[in-house]
Amino acid sequence: MRLSRFFLPILKENPKEAEIVSHRLMLRAGMIRQQSQGIYSWLPLGKRVLDKVCDIVREEQNRAGAQEILMPTLQTAELWQESGRYNDYGEEMLRITDRNKRAMLYGPTNEEMVTDIFRSYVKSYKDLPLNLYHIQWKFRDERRPRFGTMRSREFLMKDAYSFDLTKEDAIHSYNKMFTAYLRTFDRLGLRAIPMRADTGPIGGNHSHEFIILAETGESEVFCHRDFVNFDIPADSTDFDSVDGLQSIFDKWTSLYAATSEMHDEAAFDAIPEGDRLSARGIEVGHIFYFGTKYSAPMGAKVQGPDGKEHEVQMGSYGIGPSRLVPAIIEASHDENGIIWPESVAPFDVVVINMKVGDAAVDAASGRIYEALSNAGKDVLYDDRDERAGAKFATADLIGVPWQVIAGPRGIANGEVELKNRRTGERVTLSVEAAINKLAG
Amino acid sequence: MRLSRFFLPILKENPKEAEIVSHRLMLRAGMIRQQSQGIYSWLPLGKRVLDKVCDIVREEQNRAGAQEILMPTLQTAELWQESGRYNDYGEEMLRITDRNKRAMLYGPTNEEMVTDIFRSYVKSYKDLPLNLYHIQWKFRDERRPRFGTMRSREFLMKDAYSFDLTKEDAIHSYNKMFTAYLRTFDRLGLRAIPMRADTGPIGGNHSHEFIILAETGESEVFCHRDFVNFDIPADSTDFDSVDGLQSIFDKWTSLYAATSEMHDEAAFDAIPEGDRLSARGIEVGHIFYFGTKYSAPMGAKVQGPDGKEHEVQMGSYGIGPSRLVPAIIEASHDENGIIWPESVAPFDVVVINMKVGDAAVDAASGRIYEALSNAGKDVLYDDRDERAGAKFATADLIGVPWQVIAGPRGIANGEVELKNRRTGERVTLSVEAAINKLAG
Repeated sequence: MRLSRFFLPILKENPKEAEIVSHRLMLRAGMIRQQSQGIYSWLPLGKRVLDKVCDIVREEQNRAGAQEILMPTLQTAELWQESGRYNDYGEEMLRITDRNKRAMLYGPTNEEMVTDIFRSYVKSYKDLPLNLYHIQWKFRDERRPRFGTMRSREFLMKDAYSFDLTKEDAIHSYNKMFTAYLRTFDRLGLRAIPMRADTGPIGGNHSHEFIILAETGESEVFCHRDFVNFDIPADSTDFDSVDGLQSIFDKWTSLYAATSEMHDEAAFDAIPEGDRLSARGIEVGHIFYFGTKYSAPMGAKVQGPDGKEHEVQMGSYGIGPSRLVPAIIEASHDENGIIWPESVAPFDVVVINMKVGDAAVDAASGRIYEALSNAGKDVLYDDRDERAGAKFATADLIGVPWQVIAGPRGIANGEVELKNRRTGERVTLSVEAAINKLAG
Repeated sequence: MRLSRFFLPILKENPKEAEIVSHRLMLRAGMIRQQSQGIYSWLPLGKRVLDKVCDIVREEQNRAGAQEILMPTLQTAELWQESGRYNDYGEEMLRITDRNKRAMLYGPTNEEMVTDIFRSYVKSYKDLPLNLYHIQWKFRDERRPRFGTMRSREFLMKDAYSFDLTKEDAIHSYNKMFTAYLRTFDRLGLRAIPMRADTGPIGGNHSHEFIILAETGESEVFCHRDFVNFDIPADSTDFDSVDGLQSIFDKWTSLYAATSEMHDEAAFDAIPEGDRLSARGIEVGHIFYFGTKYSAPMGAKVQGPDGKEHEVQMGSYGIGPSRLVPAIIEASHDENGIIWPESVAPFDVVVINMKVGDAAVDAASGRIYEALSNAGKDVLYDDRDERAGAKFATADLIGVPWQVIAGPRGIANGEVELKNRRTGERVTLSVEAAINKLAG
């Protein structure tokens, strides 16, 4: 992508309304635009990151055996009356009346709808286990939306729903998602720690929040320091192995970790002082096992091997991609801007042409751009007629992992500079060597 | 994907509510489920097709120089009051009041919002041309939603918006989308004919509908028969060539083609009788040039090379992926089910194991499944313990382009049958030859 053609509306000033660094940087880097309170557009740079986050979430859901569907944003009130949650949900639920005076709502979550799908088709334990997920826009009419897409009203959520015959099977399904989440966050460049959690309006009695540590976190969290170095389950993990997944779960819940609501001072104090970690955290995922909370009132039953009908055992599993984008920035930035993990970077490389109009520099920059693009890399080519300082500032602000800097002096020697955004390290390389290093 | 684990809720009976074949087949093949009037969930088979349709739409938008963003589903009433359309839109607009009593709406289209984005950032003609698109759910509260996702209330739309300094530039942007649409529909296996169209609530005076011919089409259309064989612009088309695109446009509008609203009986009768084509059609795309209809009231201006401010020239360009899926089925099915074009098929191949439990057949089927999956093909493996007739019926119903049929007699000779869903042709091949043919 040529930057001269790319819609990247960078802000020079720090936006006043932004209270936290990720919100500030997303606005400054032209990733998002607020359309109304708690409702955002994703501009091209932001959309690219959001897509890459969704792709990783999707890959790990699929790896764990979940199947993607897509439920609509609008739901009927009747469905929520069946589960008894229609009145419980309060003002956060956006209630809508259609032209036929029918009571609808903008889904804040989909337990009822997916249970309705399940009960219409699945009648036998032979079709279990089943886990259906979708990545769809949700709406929660928060009293005080803030922090940009970290706490917005219209937000993108991946929500998965598992269905099993027995509680034991349901726990295995839970462990699949638990493991998938550890892998997902790791691939996003985040260290997330599972913590026992309150279940709130979703319900159930077995639930974990995945929390990343960040200074600007909304809640206080307490955990054992060893979590920071725990190994992440490998991509060869066998998701059908009940014992294997249980041992991953056991390990990751063997040490103390709790949000402030669930905090047990005495248990925390029992940890040797040097191992205690007390910090601010951001919730990036939340998983629930809630048994028959929805299947019982909604009549979602399957015939078991015993010939009898059983209310199906369920769980639900949420990750918010539109919240993960700022969470990643909170965890990875410096005073010059964003530092994207390579897995979600909007571009892999930015080629900075330091002297547009200089035939040799244009030719070399163009060649690097073409070669890396042909090698399948996402390349941004800064071909704007701007001064070098502005180009460096843009590249640093938008956080592309690698910068290739092509200037007249270097190109006269057939050389470019290669800068790593994260470390700041710069090396001088021949054009060929730079291409070879980055194309790999 | 193993069919024994794939959520494919096939219906045995013809659903009574479905009036047209695509709706019937989408329900029978377990692609969609109605959640309420005109609101559907996409089940795994349907979601796969919808994604492939969106991918092709996206590739052709990008090729034509449009950039992807993502605007929210909910908009404020104020925005629509600025353009004057808030009252015009009538009962089809779903109006919503949030907890703060603010008037919102579920976007039926995005001219206002994208104009608002444009005016906040773009100030100079140097940043033009610009074309921004998104693929997002829309809502139109139709009085009579019907035909499944062909005419639903919540529907997925790709809508692009072009911004130019002059009318001439805007016509070039229009021609880019015109050309991109010809290519998009062709890649989806559809022959779409551009027809002069009424502009309705979008406005403007230069507009084309893209219509495919299908018996179940909602409207009557009239055109010259030669359109059926016109060449589609190649993927090497230079979208920066003003003359090149104009000549594509001129060619594709050189012969008579009109929907019934725009029909001119006399002009049609002037066509030699054998070249007249009068048929039912389905609208699959609609493009508009409307000049300053939104930029003028909303104050979207850029500084021109003359130093003066100019209201920007705009157009908008819509395709509905959730409508394209049934449109493709209308154009491509037989009495046994759907016949997917390869480009959007939910799976490339289905491997039918005719005798699950037979060691040799299981081994050969598994090997074909693995080999084709490893070659990057989307493979469905029918490993269910079902009778052959049911397996053939499923494979035909869901319309996968190629079936590999592995039975005990064939496998004893190292052979399988390869069936082409479209032609019905069957050939017997060695396992290796079948893999080589399909992996290519």
